[in-house]
Amino acid sequence: MSRLNNYNEWYLDIVEKAQLSDKRYPIKGMNVWMPYGWKIMTFIDRYIREKLDATNHCEVSFPLLIPETEFKKEKDHIKGFDSEVYWVTHAGLDELDVKLVIRPTSETAMYPIFSLWIRSHQDLPLKIYQIVNTFRYETKQTRPFIRMREIHFFESHTCHDTEKDAQKQIEEDLEIVKDIANKLCIPYCLLKRTDWDKFPGAYYTVGIDTVMPNHKVLQIGSVHHYRTNFSEPYNIMYEDENGEHKYVHQTTYGMSERLLGVVISVHGDDKGLCLPPLIAPFEVVIIPIFGKNNKKEISEATVKIKNELEMANIRTKLDNRNDRPGSKYYDWEIKGVPLRLELGARDIDNNVVTFVRRDNGERGTINASSLIPEIKSILADITRSMNDKAWKFHNDAIFDLKTTSDIPKDEEDSKLMVYRFGWCGCPECGHKFEDDNNIKILGTPYFSESYDGECIICGKKTKTSAYAARTM
Amino acid sequence: MSRLNNYNEWYLDIVEKAQLSDKRYPIKGMNVWMPYGWKIMTFIDRYIREKLDATNHCEVSFPLLIPETEFKKEKDHIKGFDSEVYWVTHAGLDELDVKLVIRPTSETAMYPIFSLWIRSHQDLPLKIYQIVNTFRYETKQTRPFIRMREIHFFESHTCHDTEKDAQKQIEEDLEIVKDIANKLCIPYCLLKRTDWDKFPGAYYTVGIDTVMPNHKVLQIGSVHHYRTNFSEPYNIMYEDENGEHKYVHQTTYGMSERLLGVVISVHGDDKGLCLPPLIAPFEVVIIPIFGKNNKKEISEATVKIKNELEMANIRTKLDNRNDRPGSKYYDWEIKGVPLRLELGARDIDNNVVTFVRRDNGERGTINASSLIPEIKSILADITRSMNDKAWKFHNDAIFDLKTTSDIPKDEEDSKLMVYRFGWCGCPECGHKFEDDNNIKILGTPYFSESYDGECIICGKKTKTSAYAARTM
Repeated sequence: MSRLNNYNEWYLDIVEKAQLSDKRYPIKGMNVWMPYGWKIMTFIDRYIREKLDATNHCEVSFPLLIPETEFKKEKDHIKGFDSEVYWVTHAGLDELDVKLVIRPTSETAMYPIFSLWIRSHQDLPLKIYQIVNTFRYETKQTRPFIRMREIHFFESHTCHDTEKDAQKQIEEDLEIVKDIANKLCIPYCLLKRTDWDKFPGAYYTVGIDTVMPNHKVLQIGSVHHYRTNFSEPYNIMYEDENGEHKYVHQTTYGMSERLLGVVISVHGDDKGLCLPPLIAPFEVVIIPIFGKNNKKEISEATVKIKNELEMANIRTKLDNRNDRPGSKYYDWEIKGVPLRLELGARDIDNNVVTFVRRDNGERGTINASSLIPEIKSILADITRSMNDKAWKFHNDAIFDLKTTSDIPKDEEDSKLMVYRFGWCGCPECGHKFEDDNNIKILGTPYFSESYDGECIICGKKTKTSAYAARTM
Repeated sequence: MSRLNNYNEWYLDIVEKAQLSDKRYPIKGMNVWMPYGWKIMTFIDRYIREKLDATNHCEVSFPLLIPETEFKKEKDHIKGFDSEVYWVTHAGLDELDVKLVIRPTSETAMYPIFSLWIRSHQDLPLKIYQIVNTFRYETKQTRPFIRMREIHFFESHTCHDTEKDAQKQIEEDLEIVKDIANKLCIPYCLLKRTDWDKFPGAYYTVGIDTVMPNHKVLQIGSVHHYRTNFSEPYNIMYEDENGEHKYVHQTTYGMSERLLGVVISVHGDDKGLCLPPLIAPFEVVIIPIFGKNNKKEISEATVKIKNELEMANIRTKLDNRNDRPGSKYYDWEIKGVPLRLELGARDIDNNVVTFVRRDNGERGTINASSLIPEIKSILADITRSMNDKAWKFHNDAIFDLKTTSDIPKDEEDSKLMVYRFGWCGCPECGHKFEDDNNIKILGTPYFSESYDGECIICGKKTKTSAYAARTM
């Protein structure tokens, strides 16, 4: 199955072959996380936890269910989610007096409680997060990790005394985004969404977008500035140093299991997964190459290497199944283990270990006496190379558009790109661009890029570029 | 508030003061996990994960929602849960064709998938677990961590080729129970439940029971042997070595956030929580005792100690708030930090650090040059002492009952105990005992205890003892 020529089928095939999730669960869009897939996800979660803890966010856990009465307090928000939430109407043999929503996101669960937790400026900033599952009744075609009805994600929520402090939070969030993306070797654009595409209830939204192998764009996360749009209806106020009562300014930041969907899509190849070392359940797999009469010697040597690697905190699998080496290579290539070590008679004679990199297929030998530092250095280089390769693809996919006639009309056109072009910023030109070309404006760069040109619709001079693409 | 005289109010007071959970969430029985409470729970989860991984269980994550059609396949099971599940009937603006149950436990979510995963005897044993929240529409009075409608728990599910292998699994589970209980310093009885009290659908159930300060008993977990009671309706079969198709034998094991409820109840005192070191967010708190003109010196010394402890992987809080030491003691006693270190001018002069144990109030000094080994030894001794003290209370609460007239009739009677007595084992005597005395038979010891006496009801000679108590 070819990733570039037939991405959609390739993706489903890899998810199944690498045993990441099982889509045969009897509810569409709700899959079973299998052990290997779940392990990768928990490594992603662990890193997110580390980053959020290090920036003084506290982990909490809010209830899954939200009373309809709380859910409906912020008008734009409920309008945005009305058609995609699950409703609990009965419990046991009773019909509930107040219907309950299964969380599609937790603003409306958290903010009534924030209004109790926050009293004075000394309680600010409040910075919390949770890692939970969220539920959206998707009507579009579902796809593992990318478009699900039960979604594993994290959401951080913060409250600040001033808009300026909230703004600083957005910048801290974007630093975390960059760091996570770097560790997962995922390229991204940070784009301020158009006003008609921002999160329901937000003042503004920054989308974190990445280009998939089919040149469509996937949002892998978002950061929102709410100003006081939620604190007003939910009455989240603090007393400032002068005794005045003011509404808090709020932000949120979230990323989901789509991170895994992107890791699969961006790094995988026709042999299977290719995992960034940080989140690989095994960073290294050791395959013994038995000859005649040396099984005991080779076995012992591989066990010794495995122990040495584990002592150095390198996650290692020794595959001593009774099977041909080639068949083992095949299995671990599907699973995307970053580095394979092979050990045969000749390696032992030469006091080396043979290695093969998953990311570029490079094969070489490591001196047995400097195993640990060399492996660590190769793993670091794998992360670097995976980043370089992924960013090259991402950047190559972005096309500087001078005229809309360069956009292919056929959605399946293999020449489809991500388009960068001048935009005066007015909604009329934006809507016209989207409608005429059946393509979505993703937004304008959050960190301004130098641009000097004309609005692609009205021709007015502009210093603002916009990005547009078909989306997953 | 006194724990022993007024346990119920003391408990709610501590949960609030130690900031473990917030019960003001607008759905009864669904509370907000606050940062400190959630941190303790994640430490409990982490240890459970470690034990289950070490016994070759794989972590997975199954969907929250279960179609009514799957849910109803095992008749006793649905009967047991009929009156306590939440029903999702609508999604977006649509009424669902098949109603969905929010998991009250995951047998009916997992077993249709197990029937796809298991083909041959080589796929067995299958041992998986997940750590998720489960939902039961409790009609009894709710209580934080002890009786909730959204319950944080783990459930492990296993499939085996023979009943004997399933039986071995039960014994492995009970070893894990003992280990976890030991680390949390929780005493327990392992009791095989009566036939009329076993888990819906089980062949037999072992309850893990502990005695609370009010002498009522709380089930903190359970282990179930299902035989083929679920594999038959869910058609989970394997092909044995002779090509014959057979049903798998299944077991499950689960424990919940009640573990935290018991830790609070069993170890707490009138000053607040007392946490076993394994799950304390901070094992050690350092309080600087400033004198005149030595603030800088003391500050620097406490920072140095904190760094030294953290290098040794001892979770440490340095409380350098601008406040009186006594007020800091008070705060950290409420939060149950196992060991407090104080550092003042005299300590520095004598090259020692003063320590105060939370569990028994013991105060002493540690030589600054052997800080790490001495602190590790004190923390280990705290775990030992907490176990001893808790087991003494537990054992003292068990009363060898010779005649039912020794059972106080009034539920609030402070002389209420856990009763051990002879039982012939027949359901008639069992029901009569329960009905006449308004008390529940918890079961018979899973690991047989030597007993020689008469059935307390019919007087027949018996070698079996039973336990009975009022339950939380």
